[in-house]
Amino acid sequence: MEKKITVLPGDGIGPEVVAAAVRVLQAIGKRYKHDFQLAYASIGGSAIDQFNTPLPEDTIELCKQSDAILLGAVGGPKWDNNPPELRPEKGLLQIRKTFDLFANLRPVKAFPSLLDSSPLKREVADNVDLLIVRELTGGIYFGEKKRTESEASDLSIYTRKEIERIVDNAFELAKLRRGKLCSVDKANVLETSRLWREVVEEKKHQYPEVEVEHNLVDSVAMKLITNPSHYDVVVTDNMFGDILSDEASVITGSLGVLPSASIRGDSFGLYEPVHGSAPEIAGLGIANPAAAILSVAMMLQYSFGLKEEAAEIERAVNAVFEDGYFTMDLAKDKEHALTTDEWTDKVIAE
Amino acid sequence: MEKKITVLPGDGIGPEVVAAAVRVLQAIGKRYKHDFQLAYASIGGSAIDQFNTPLPEDTIELCKQSDAILLGAVGGPKWDNNPPELRPEKGLLQIRKTFDLFANLRPVKAFPSLLDSSPLKREVADNVDLLIVRELTGGIYFGEKKRTESEASDLSIYTRKEIERIVDNAFELAKLRRGKLCSVDKANVLETSRLWREVVEEKKHQYPEVEVEHNLVDSVAMKLITNPSHYDVVVTDNMFGDILSDEASVITGSLGVLPSASIRGDSFGLYEPVHGSAPEIAGLGIANPAAAILSVAMMLQYSFGLKEEAAEIERAVNAVFEDGYFTMDLAKDKEHALTTDEWTDKVIAE
Ligand SMILES: CC(C)[C@H](C(=O)O)[C@@H](O)C(=O)O
Ligand SMILES: CC(C)[C@H](C(=O)O)[C@@H](O)C(=O)O
Repeated sequence: MEKKITVLPGDGIGPEVVAAAVRVLQAIGKRYKHDFQLAYASIGGSAIDQFNTPLPEDTIELCKQSDAILLGAVGGPKWDNNPPELRPEKGLLQIRKTFDLFANLRPVKAFPSLLDSSPLKREVADNVDLLIVRELTGGIYFGEKKRTESEASDLSIYTRKEIERIVDNAFELAKLRRGKLCSVDKANVLETSRLWREVVEEKKHQYPEVEVEHNLVDSVAMKLITNPSHYDVVVTDNMFGDILSDEASVITGSLGVLPSASIRGDSFGLYEPVHGSAPEIAGLGIANPAAAILSVAMMLQYSFGLKEEAAEIERAVNAVFEDGYFTMDLAKDKEHALTTDEWTDKVIAE
Repeated sequence: MEKKITVLPGDGIGPEVVAAAVRVLQAIGKRYKHDFQLAYASIGGSAIDQFNTPLPEDTIELCKQSDAILLGAVGGPKWDNNPPELRPEKGLLQIRKTFDLFANLRPVKAFPSLLDSSPLKREVADNVDLLIVRELTGGIYFGEKKRTESEASDLSIYTRKEIERIVDNAFELAKLRRGKLCSVDKANVLETSRLWREVVEEKKHQYPEVEVEHNLVDSVAMKLITNPSHYDVVVTDNMFGDILSDEASVITGSLGVLPSASIRGDSFGLYEPVHGSAPEIAGLGIANPAAAILSVAMMLQYSFGLKEEAAEIERAVNAVFEDGYFTMDLAKDKEHALTTDEWTDKVIAE
């Protein structure tokens, strides 16, 4: 198989973890005889520094010619006081919109060897295996914004079509998993939520094998912590998805190892670790590359249909944890923590 | 002291827990020689059944003539499919708006004797003592709503004034506590959040004794679970406040014992337990009245300035827990769980 991948290292620890993930990608390519062609471009703060825009035209062009995108992270204190148009995050929002990446997939799965790092009791976090599907290109993030001296507003707006495609996506994913879908809204207050709920109710007849429940966002914010193993697939809008997927990311104590995919229904997709740019440890070579490596596994699975290769990476990462190898963030015994490169070597050896 | 209190029992377990709270209120009144005059009225589902509206005019009138409101809970499956205007929650939204109750205070404090019921590890939930201040009458809850066959929208809108008054409120509360304020927004995306952040930045010069931080809502959704004792006062908008205050309510394992106050800057206020109407156990006499009782304590403190009396109730509740008396929801040994009335007797005895 021959595939073109655009690599966007970004800011902070982005370049380090992406370099590690690329090494794993190449090792898999060699072993399974795939030709992964990589091309690098810039995004976020480093793009602002070099080109005065968080998403240069050249980057967009390169992405257009590729089959998938691997992204590190964007942002850092250096750009925090920039005007909205010159903020690193804007690059992320623009790339999502430009490529119509409407579905953000955030799996959260307990690694038993990491549960000691969880803020939750072991019996609560154990067996958690959920997938949050967040609508990524609509809602209040992209609706009209207004500002005067004395007033500000943001419009949350959804068309039926926008909801239908993300809901279809979530149903399909639920079919491939345990067949349970929880749709999250605030239908007792919001009009967009009532339309959302209507669409889910209509669609569910097309997926009789999936069991559906509706739940209010405030109630899910509680239950994600009191009973996270209740959930299989959770689908929700852009804003609620932002909050709930970050909340869910702490359940298993493995925030540093969570991958994500942003897709649009065909095979194209953008893959990135959930953790941010962590400027405070950038350049030290101690960042945990597991999330970036697992993002590559998601790319292999969702964009290239390479299930076996993806499973192989997940197995290797799990095995390295089981063997007791950790980077600084997870090591109980900080003295024996591995560097980014050492840990990546272990995964490749596996 | 002579005070008029409107009591709105509402639906589900509302009437039971309110009855218990009223008994405690009367016991305190007797002991400290205050004259608390109670008048009852209806709200929510039971008001819909009787008067075909979730907030009858008579209820509004009665509230207007009183110094404070004690509310049980509203809602239940019976009314879940009603049109928006005939839903129990609408009564709650209307009473907030009618009386301009713009500040919702939700304290979350660990009771050491309840921490076993927390989903969080003891060392994480220990020492938590935070107060979420949620803006309650603005934002996306009350902004213009539109709906066509193929599209729906909700407008999130805030005036500078609306933000100023809630932020002032939060600063004042922080001054009376540990002097730390965390303002929560999504300023990297939302215009309303940028105005919010501006106001907090301006206001902070008036409160030099309070230490302020800004944090993004997604990041707070994580940190509330990984490091809840970091927080003292948290101030945020209506929507974020709804989600975060419910999320925070599970930290200490004491969801059933959390009170709330909705106030407006003068002495008038509405006090209600955080838990809902719990229709599945309504009428059984086993509901936990602690949240309603502690809501009365908040009323004594915030509306009547009766600090000693409020502290007395809190002390009694804590003592009953310490002595190992629990209602069904918290008892490890369900056979020895107390009924609502028995538990209330213990508190009154204390
Ligand atoms: C950086 C920000 C705009 C972004 C978002 O909220 O979508 C981030 O928090 C995320 O979740 O990917
Ligand atoms: C019932 C509902 C409208 C209400 C809200 O979201 O404000 C409730 O969830 C609350 O938090 O008091």
